[in-house]
Order: sequence, then structure tokens, then C-alpha cells
Amino acid sequence: MTAIPPTDGLPGESGQREDDVLKAISRIVSASHIPAGEVHIGDDAAVLEPTVGSTVISTDVSVWGIHLDPEFFSLHDFGYKAVATAVSDLAAMGARPEACVIAVTAPKGTDLISIHEGIAEAALMTSCPVVGGDLSTGRDISLAVTVVGQCPDSKPILRSNAKPGEFIFVTAPLGRAAAGLRLRRAGAGMENELVLAQCRPYPRLREGMTARDANVSAMMDLSDGLALDLNRMADLSGVGFELDYIPVAEGATLEEALSGGEDYELLIVTPDPETLLHLSKDRSQMQPILIGRTVVNQSIRNLEGRPLTRRGWQHSL
Amino acid sequence: MTAIPPTDGLPGESGQREDDVLKAISRIVSASHIPAGEVHIGDDAAVLEPTVGSTVISTDVSVWGIHLDPEFFSLHDFGYKAVATAVSDLAAMGARPEACVIAVTAPKGTDLISIHEGIAEAALMTSCPVVGGDLSTGRDISLAVTVVGQCPDSKPILRSNAKPGEFIFVTAPLGRAAAGLRLRRAGAGMENELVLAQCRPYPRLREGMTARDANVSAMMDLSDGLALDLNRMADLSGVGFELDYIPVAEGATLEEALSGGEDYELLIVTPDPETLLHLSKDRSQMQPILIGRTVVNQSIRNLEGRPLTRRGWQHSL
Repeated sequence: MTAIPPTDGLPGESGQREDDVLKAISRIVSASHIPAGEVHIGDDAAVLEPTVGSTVISTDVSVWGIHLDPEFFSLHDFGYKAVATAVSDLAAMGARPEACVIAVTAPKGTDLISIHEGIAEAALMTSCPVVGGDLSTGRDISLAVTVVGQCPDSKPILRSNAKPGEFIFVTAPLGRAAAGLRLRRAGAGMENELVLAQCRPYPRLREGMTARDANVSAMMDLSDGLALDLNRMADLSGVGFELDYIPVAEGATLEEALSGGEDYELLIVTPDPETLLHLSKDRSQMQPILIGRTVVNQSIRNLEGRPLTRRGWQHSL
Repeated sequence: MTAIPPTDGLPGESGQREDDVLKAISRIVSASHIPAGEVHIGDDAAVLEPTVGSTVISTDVSVWGIHLDPEFFSLHDFGYKAVATAVSDLAAMGARPEACVIAVTAPKGTDLISIHEGIAEAALMTSCPVVGGDLSTGRDISLAVTVVGQCPDSKPILRSNAKPGEFIFVTAPLGRAAAGLRLRRAGAGMENELVLAQCRPYPRLREGMTARDANVSAMMDLSDGLALDLNRMADLSGVGFELDYIPVAEGATLEEALSGGEDYELLIVTPDPETLLHLSKDRSQMQPILIGRTVVNQSIRNLEGRPLTRRGWQHSL
């Protein structure tokens, strides 16, 4: 769409024209693999190849200064993380990424190239090509990333389908991203493994597809912290839970593991833990970690027998 | 995705918690028709039903104060227009709307209900249900709307496929939206038909599908004005054009028709005008208006024999 005549939106000597910026960006993001036969940036809409099975779609918006701190991270990090965390929602459905489109707002003079280099890196890493986008001036630097994925052979895994008496897993120890943010603020370098977990998360795509193949009941990605996200899943599924173990990542605290958020590990509930563990092993993936069980009584939300309070990051709107 | 701890992002007495806001919004937008069997807001991603044929996808971002002027229009208008103009990109491919997802940024205290009432109105009007979304705090009020559509029986119509010697049509007289903005700024009421064209555009979905059925060569929606958009289509198709007539809407000026933008009428190029006109008539749709012809020489870009300069609204970035 287009703009009404804004006083600061007219082409000027200091600014670059939208068509020119779009061309430059198109060159950068086309480094990510695009399937043959698909039509991409430059038309009204992108055309995706027909596929068999369910299509899933999700949108996520990231705002520079809210979702990543400009004092400690770069615009390249911001572009990468916006795409990676959006793709994580596909992992959470057990879906295979098909494509993404990205809507950008930014003040005049923003380094759009760095942002799009980060976007392209994440798109390549997750095999989720950027097939379209839009740009507007704005006061915030924001990226709205919409991802589309496919579940070719079986249904996507929902959050709402956990049953009582099932087994609760996470894909890895928790708290790395929150610990990385703490360490970065205290002066840790960008090479620190936990700092990388904060700014270069990798969506658990293979693990999500394996969980779907293992016919798990429910799944979601841990973006806001286990203490909040597990409660959300329990609400939607109409179950309670008894946790007996929280795997805390090396270098992180228990509180970071419970409510730090941004780990983007998967939370998986299954009636059949053997199949999940076997398939993971067969495919040389990380072994999911058993942390507890679902129960009939919805009001039971316990960790080691004591109530796990609902806490984690929520926007105030 | 979630937020790092922002100083203004913690749940407070004055703010509403994200989960509560999402529930309220979900109620409003679910007024738009959602096909049975699909899974929507509340999971990591929305699940769309399998379909046969090409899927098209497009994203558009609108910023309050840039794409619509708060002095003369409401947040309801803003929500409506953001969705309607995004859906127009589906019309431009000849696609049938299937679903949309919407990423919102807004400062604390923003009237999100009014915005989503506008969103729901446009979603209902265009049969494009809102199946998911995301919310973040930000300084700007912005809406990134991603639309997905289907072309069940034939290929989507691209911008880049016009051939020399074909016929150029638009779906209606031009300049209404720009005239409406001018009149609104001069004091016209919201009931004024041209003002409504500015803030309540209706995407030409039926006309786009008819054009696809009529096997037209190229199509796009006129968002930035004919003088800019036709040049873009000519660039992508590698043709020139000779226009002999510009249909100016009643109440608009020639300049508004050429470069005002935001009309969201369709620009159609076809080798077979008879079929297009017949199908339109058979279906009781508006008769497309012939405005000129494409030519081999790419450097010819004329209106009534004189060069049509490339002008219209572009962001400066």
C-alpha cells in the first residue's frame, strides 16, 4: 500500500527512494534459497508452489529497543532474531518452513542493509526464503515477520491437545537466553555461548518435525518462559501438571530457566515417550528431557509439590 | 515472540496484560467468518485447510500518521483501511482471500478495540478472516497485515507478463481517494462519497477474479497512482505504453487521477479485451475502461503523445 503525502515522506536528497531501497534489499535476501518456479519480491503478492497437507501461518512483530537492546546488540542481530523467533512458531507446530514475508518500519536513514543481512542469514539457516515484504517510514524500527510452513504427512501439533496422565518434555536445559542477556549487560563478548543463545537463537525445526512424527499430543515453543508458557498450554488443554525437575542450563539460574523466556526450546506433551525418545535417537537429535506429567485436576500446577506461579514476560498494553 | 525486560513493559496497574488484551481482540475479530475446521488465534500458528492450486501471500504495513492522518480519520478507519488495502494485493493477483494475520505495535493505552473493530469490519467485508496476530508495545501505532489467497483454477496474474500490442484497462475512474483526502482536509464530512473512498476503500476482488478467468496478461492494483504504477508494470514487463485517455472520477482532478494514489482500482493488460468485457458484463460487474495500449519500444511512456512522467507517492527511506 502507499502513503498519504507525509511532510517527511517525500523523496528528498537525503533519503533513498522506496523502489531503489527495495531493489537493494531484494538482492540481499535472495541469497536465501528460493525454490524454483516461485515468484517473489516485485509483484503484488508472492506465489507459493502447491503442496499437499496442512499449511500453517504465524506472524510476529519485533521492535528495536523492546525485543533487543540497541546498547548491547546490532541491527544485524535484530534482523536475525526477528526471523529466527518467527520461524520457531513453525517448529512449535512440527511444520517445515516454506517461506516468509517481512514488513519493516524504520526512521529515515536507518541501516536497512544490516537489518536485511541478518534477515537473510536467518532465512538461509532455517531454509525459510524471504518471498516478499513491505517498507514504511516510522519512528520505531520494527519487523513484522510472517512465516508459512507445511505439515506434509500428518496434522500440525496444537497447544490445546494435551491429555491428563501424559509426559511433559523440553528439548534442552533452559535459561540460556536470559543468562546471556545478563552476561552481555555485565560486559560479556559476543562470542560467549550464552550471549549467542540470546541474539542468535536457533529454532528447533528438526526436533519439532520429529515430535510430530512421534504423534505427540501437544507442543509449543518456550518464548515467554516455562512458568508462563506451560500454564498457557495447561489452560488451553484443560489439564493440570506436576513437574518434578527443571533442567537448568549451565551458567543460568533456576529463575532464568523458569521465567527468563526467549529460549525457543520446545515444550512437548506425549502419551508415548518411548517413540519420541527412539525417533530422536535414530535421527541423532538431542534427547528430549522429561520434566513431569499432566494431571486431571486443572488447579494443580506444581513444581516439586509446590505451586508454580504464573510468571514470565508479558507486554503491558 | 517475547520481549526482553523493557522498563515500560512490565505488567502494571495502568496497563492491560497481553493475554487479556489478546482474548478481547480475539472476540472482536472472530466476528469475521472463519471456515469450520481451521485452528486460529491462541496457538503458535494458525492452520489453514488444504486447497488445490497456487497460494499467494503478501504483507503490507500501515503506520498511523503516515498512512492515515489522525487529524481527520479514526483508529477504526485505520484498522479497516490497513486490512482492505492489504487484501487489494490479492485482488491484484486475481486471487480469492483465504485468511490474514495481523501484527500490531502500539503505545500503552492505545484504543486497540477500535482498531480491531475496523479490522474485523474489513475482514468480514472481504471474506478474509483474521486467523492470528501478534502485539507489541512501540512508539508508533502500526499494523502489518499479511494476507493469503488462493487461485484455484488458473495461475495468478503477475505484473511482469504484459506483451507489446495489448490493451490497457482500469476498473473505474481514478482520483477518488486523493480527492476525498483533499475534501476531508477542507472540512467535508465522513459521509462524503469521496472521503469514504479515501478511508473505506473496497478491494476489487470480484473484478480481479474475472480478469484471471478472462486470461489477462498482467494486472496490479493502483496504490501509488497510475503514473507510477503503470511505469512499474512497464519496467517489469519490458514494454512501453501509449495512453489516449485517463478516466477522471467526478470531483477529482486529472493530477489526482494520475498520481494521487490509493484508489485501489485494478490496472489490467490483456490481448483479448472482448472476453474481459463480456465476462464482466455477464457477471454484472463494472465494465473495465480502456485507456491505451502497450508498445514494443520500452522508452515510449506516453499520455496523448506526450511523456507521462513517473510520479506518485514513494517513501523516502
